[in-house]
Amino acid sequence: MVKRVKLIVAYDGTAYHGWQLQPGADTIEGRLNAALSELLGEPIMVIGASRTDAGVHALCNVAVFDTQARMPADKISYALNRRLPEDIRIRHSEEVPADFHPRRHARQKTYEYHIRQAAFPMPVGRQYTYFTYLPLNTEDMNLAAQYLVGEHDFKSFCSIHSQAETTVRTILSLSVTGQEIPTPGVWNPGIEKEICIRVTGTGFLYHMVRIIAGTLLEVGQGKRRPEEMEEILNACDRAKAGPTAPACGLILTDYRFEEV
Amino acid sequence: MVKRVKLIVAYDGTAYHGWQLQPGADTIEGRLNAALSELLGEPIMVIGASRTDAGVHALCNVAVFDTQARMPADKISYALNRRLPEDIRIRHSEEVPADFHPRRHARQKTYEYHIRQAAFPMPVGRQYTYFTYLPLNTEDMNLAAQYLVGEHDFKSFCSIHSQAETTVRTILSLSVTGQEIPTPGVWNPGIEKEICIRVTGTGFLYHMVRIIAGTLLEVGQGKRRPEEMEEILNACDRAKAGPTAPACGLILTDYRFEEV
Repeated sequence: MVKRVKLIVAYDGTAYHGWQLQPGADTIEGRLNAALSELLGEPIMVIGASRTDAGVHALCNVAVFDTQARMPADKISYALNRRLPEDIRIRHSEEVPADFHPRRHARQKTYEYHIRQAAFPMPVGRQYTYFTYLPLNTEDMNLAAQYLVGEHDFKSFCSIHSQAETTVRTILSLSVTGQEIPTPGVWNPGIEKEICIRVTGTGFLYHMVRIIAGTLLEVGQGKRRPEEMEEILNACDRAKAGPTAPACGLILTDYRFEEV
Repeated sequence: MVKRVKLIVAYDGTAYHGWQLQPGADTIEGRLNAALSELLGEPIMVIGASRTDAGVHALCNVAVFDTQARMPADKISYALNRRLPEDIRIRHSEEVPADFHPRRHARQKTYEYHIRQAAFPMPVGRQYTYFTYLPLNTEDMNLAAQYLVGEHDFKSFCSIHSQAETTVRTILSLSVTGQEIPTPGVWNPGIEKEICIRVTGTGFLYHMVRIIAGTLLEVGQGKRRPEEMEEILNACDRAKAGPTAPACGLILTDYRFEEV
């Protein structure tokens, strides 16, 4: 009897060449295939929901695979974690219907992009945060972000290396929040800020969240006005948007499917 | 002209054998001495405020040193950061009076101990968090914590390897707060919690915060009643308290001096 199993996978992407299997490179998918094949005694190939880039992190990516093994689906998480390095952890495993496919099923994903604005980078948490010493106006960033909410052609925010058939996507919500970090009185107060860009959508194009973050960073620095976002979007031209922000600040934080 | 310079030092302690200089071991103090001596062209020996253990982190430890170099004190942070690895950063440097000594000057320190209670450890942030799958009652932990607030003989919460002349210390505040981590509906809700033990005092004994954390963890697990904290304190016997909690969860988060 073949069964289909769904895994919820968390990882620190710092040490990996991204999710997707690549010959000669250490990837999350490669690690999962190797550990599952060893555990279940048959060759296993997972299908991932989000093929995150090198250096991007996830709290809850999703993978499915088919197996003939007898091990109950809910026990696989425990057994698999003993065969994985500490920067990859299976948070949950369960059986799903045989026709469940994580990229075809209706879904909703949330990414967060974390920024630290300060005089110097902070060693604690540096793996998960993009550092900038340039002051950022988070109100302007949040104003700019609202132009992107809804169904749009996001070609301007898509890597030119993308192979997507259509560049139309739907952003359900996009917010930019800033919080001053309380700093002891011993140094300049008020110069340290933690900023979080949080975006929820039904799907994203290659590099889309990082290009959005890179463009919003330019708005925050005053290089662009918030209203320019509309022109950038309408141009359908990657060259009009800002740079692709570094991978380390990006975390896949939530992943929901409609009733499986 | 000799001047005394104060540094605010942040570090990820994961890779280091603690703060204190040790022959043949990589320590924060050793790295600072080497980088400062090279930068200023004379042998520099810093005096640290908190000699944190191996694996403990800091957002704002303090070090002072004397130098004859002409470089303005406030520029030293920038120049020094270029000579330090990315897991150590100087957040601020300034000149202080020649008689300022970070361990003799009246001060107030805050440590946080971070715990994640969940079915599985979370790769993101694992360097800075102690993981347990055992459910913790944070209300009980917080009740227990209150017995320790004030001036007491903390001998029960002091490593037997301590060389302190007196084991009397003052805890100004001690709180335990828990927060449920919002988890997508795809796995068991409510099993994931982030717990923070925050303690402020004028000074701490060797391993004191980690022994307090280890004892509060036992209260949280129901192995001890909150009221037992009073007996443990009064016993003045290390054997009565709980184990020393692992270093990775501990972060020095705040350091204040009375007017320098």
